[in-house]
Amino acid sequence: MCKKIRVTVWNEFRHERHNEIIRAIYPEGLHAVIGRALEQDEELDVRLAALDDPEQGLPADVLNNTDVLLWWGHMAHYEVNDALVEAIKQRVYLGKMGLIVLHSGHHSKVFRGVVGTSGNLSWGRNQKEIVWTVNPAHPIAQGIPDHFCLAQEELYSEPFFVGEPDETVFVSWFEDGFVMRSGMVFRRSAGKIFYFQPGHEECPSYYNEWVQKVIRNAVHYVKPTAAAIPESAPHWPFRAIDDFDA
Amino acid sequence: MCKKIRVTVWNEFRHERHNEIIRAIYPEGLHAVIGRALEQDEELDVRLAALDDPEQGLPADVLNNTDVLLWWGHMAHYEVNDALVEAIKQRVYLGKMGLIVLHSGHHSKVFRGVVGTSGNLSWGRNQKEIVWTVNPAHPIAQGIPDHFCLAQEELYSEPFFVGEPDETVFVSWFEDGFVMRSGMVFRRSAGKIFYFQPGHEECPSYYNEWVQKVIRNAVHYVKPTAAAIPESAPHWPFRAIDDFDA
Amino acid sequence: MCKKIRVTVWNEFRHERHNEIIRAIYPEGLHAVIGRALEQDEELDVRLAALDDPEQGLPADVLNNTDVLLWWGHMAHYEVNDALVEAIKQRVYLGKMGLIVLHSGHHSKVFRGVVGTSGNLSWGRNQKEIVWTVNPAHPIAQGIPDHFCLAQEELYSEPFFVGEPDETVFVSWFEDGFVMRSGMVFRRSAGKIFYFQPGHEECPSYYNEWVQKVIRNAVHYVKPTAAAIPESAPHWPFRAIDDFDA
Amino acid sequence: MCKKIRVTVWNEFRHERHNEIIRAIYPEGLHAVIGRALEQDEELDVRLAALDDPEQGLPADVLNNTDVLLWWGHMAHYEVNDALVEAIKQRVYLGKMGLIVLHSGHHSKVFRGVVGTSGNLSWGRNQKEIVWTVNPAHPIAQGIPDHFCLAQEELYSEPFFVGEPDETVFVSWFEDGFVMRSGMVFRRSAGKIFYFQPGHEECPSYYNEWVQKVIRNAVHYVKPTAAAIPESAPHWPFRAIDDFDA
Repeated sequence: MCKKIRVTVWNEFRHERHNEIIRAIYPEGLHAVIGRALEQDEELDVRLAALDDPEQGLPADVLNNTDVLLWWGHMAHYEVNDALVEAIKQRVYLGKMGLIVLHSGHHSKVFRGVVGTSGNLSWGRNQKEIVWTVNPAHPIAQGIPDHFCLAQEELYSEPFFVGEPDETVFVSWFEDGFVMRSGMVFRRSAGKIFYFQPGHEECPSYYNEWVQKVIRNAVHYVKPTAAAIPESAPHWPFRAIDDFDA
Repeated sequence: MCKKIRVTVWNEFRHERHNEIIRAIYPEGLHAVIGRALEQDEELDVRLAALDDPEQGLPADVLNNTDVLLWWGHMAHYEVNDALVEAIKQRVYLGKMGLIVLHSGHHSKVFRGVVGTSGNLSWGRNQKEIVWTVNPAHPIAQGIPDHFCLAQEELYSEPFFVGEPDETVFVSWFEDGFVMRSGMVFRRSAGKIFYFQPGHEECPSYYNEWVQKVIRNAVHYVKPTAAAIPESAPHWPFRAIDDFDA
Repeated sequence: MCKKIRVTVWNEFRHERHNEIIRAIYPEGLHAVIGRALEQDEELDVRLAALDDPEQGLPADVLNNTDVLLWWGHMAHYEVNDALVEAIKQRVYLGKMGLIVLHSGHHSKVFRGVVGTSGNLSWGRNQKEIVWTVNPAHPIAQGIPDHFCLAQEELYSEPFFVGEPDETVFVSWFEDGFVMRSGMVFRRSAGKIFYFQPGHEECPSYYNEWVQKVIRNAVHYVKPTAAAIPESAPHWPFRAIDDFDA
Repeated sequence: MCKKIRVTVWNEFRHERHNEIIRAIYPEGLHAVIGRALEQDEELDVRLAALDDPEQGLPADVLNNTDVLLWWGHMAHYEVNDALVEAIKQRVYLGKMGLIVLHSGHHSKVFRGVVGTSGNLSWGRNQKEIVWTVNPAHPIAQGIPDHFCLAQEELYSEPFFVGEPDETVFVSWFEDGFVMRSGMVFRRSAGKIFYFQPGHEECPSYYNEWVQKVIRNAVHYVKPTAAAIPESAPHWPFRAIDDFDA
């Protein structure tokens, strides 16, 4: 394929602007760090977007030219326009766009709406996390070691109320005694969604080489593959069985 | 269990009131026929509800006392209040209510919202349908023969854009050359959803003994089993590993 | 249902006879402890069986009268007769028997053969395990708390090469930094299989009230539900479509 | 990837040699037709193998240099050596080889053993089949129309006792009133398996352009992706949590 995969990294981008400690970690926003990591991949054409950009960062011409959307949100989930959420859902469902939801995006309208879930989980203080690869044969795990460590990440713990995922790729161990299915794929309508748990704004996880590689692999995995999914519910006019061959 | 399962059969109930031909088939509404069939089961406590009832048939005290909700809608999907849809979603996700979506409910806000799908499929003229039991070991198929016939049903055909279902129970053959996964279970958050395709308003399918039995089995299958799912995302305060035993 | 569920608890039963330390924990064999726990349930009719019993504990009249088989094996996996393994497989596949595989049974011919897996995982020293309920709405989790602790269990860790399970019920945390999907359901042909990880012969886990309750719940969950699954691949003689209604 | 995918098309190759009518359809064996179709794909390196070749067509140096194995068998399933079946299973489970099972291979030792299934289904006379694409977004469906017809194929019908597949790609309609999930993916251990129903020896389905394209797509989909899956169950020696970072 000579055409590049058009990736948009969307970030709420508030913590980094309003909190000095977080700005010290991600001066240009965590999406900028993710974006730079993805730009290393020549097959990707990367764009950044933020909640406070015009049209919440995703005007129609951007959304309609996005093959894979990454979503990081936290304290402003409810500011995101319902119409935008609906447009994202339709684009994923029609197989025109893959979706990667990061960390606190588990409670975003986008994740809850697209996947069909409360998005509920439990959480706690920052601590050591070990991410285990439970499906080393999965394309998202290619080149990832059997485990990698994050010295400080926010505790997210089970039960994560997502029903049964279609594919479980990573499960994490947390120092304080908790576990979390930290990398999961959901297939919905004609689209693929990947949820990846690391990425608290107070922790430098998006600088981690394995976190970056997981996200890069996921972009390739959830990108659209289908040609033309019908937009609605087409009607079949009658034809005789013998006319099916034509 | 001595407590009965509280079932609410919700019907849009417009076709039957506005169209003589359909009223001739279902004089009191198709929900009344389904309700009477379910009442044969002594473990069920059945209630009827309709779109044009006060509060769209599901005031809080009804919804909050419903263990299993059946949903039939068609031409008025968009009249259903978003707040009601949201309340249904939360109840299903929190494991307090199972959901059964019938026929044209595939395009309802409720089905699309709860399951996370466009709900798109293709459709055509009424014709003969043969429903095949593809998983005879499934609880919903208990007592159902290997196949049963519906002399006249509306054609619904694949692709039905629901991603991969958690459980496939029935697949249907249509006279004009089409197929449809006609009975499927979806697990979402802590809830179960069953979609069942037969039931066009112009056809007497809800009088069919096997259709009735499938729906009755499904009520038992999707009913809530969990005790107490937390309403949101609880925070774990720190405790030492050694305190986990207490 | 007035008929009891006929449960057979099969144990290799070598460690307990040949090793004093293990005998001190399970004097009559670990299957005896499991069996006594199950006998508390009046709906169950429990029988014990061991590898060194006549016909390896499962003569045809026992196997053919077993609704749910529990399997614990370890160092003698390869002594189990292939013909017995084949008979167990067929019984599970035909929906006549549910199967529960415990701990080191992950490498048994029975588990690997029935589920279709290498059964490979990693392992290590005995240590503290915390079992987390990741699907509190699952019937096997009914009455189980959000987590429970085992002060000493053998480390079993991911990747556990079982493909994607049909249902994930428990995930465990281990003191030394590892995780394990410790309770999983597999559906194969017309049968259900539950794998449950706790139960090293050197540890008293089968005396734990929650371990006992999980196993009891699992017996009810995997028990056969289907009436009559054909034994082979039946041939359909031709009949006209119009004869399908008869 | 510059290295070619090494594909071996294995055929029982008895019908074509012993029956004139079948030889007239597939003079050099049906595997030769499949092989020639695959050779059109420059990324594939194709080899043919047959049951009556030395070492049943799969000596160790062939098997160990096969990335994707296609399997067509029928009347001689029980002649295939158990040791060969075991070697195939291990290779699939360890993620070293993908597997595509065709038509009557549903009852082969290989399919039943690798997937864990009785392989049972029902069957009947040759007739018209319409193959419907139920998941147009699946990589195996790329470039395949919403449906295609086979004027004559052997009836295979549900229930096909395979448990719940991981991915359902095609469902077929048969003239006489039957349906069949005709294209399904199973993930087992670290391997992928695709079952595809068309291909009765009396019918020219392997000359059909869409059948050929489905098989070609499937080769790319099930090919191994993982680097190095451990051969057995490795032991983790103790190390302190703080040593995990190293």
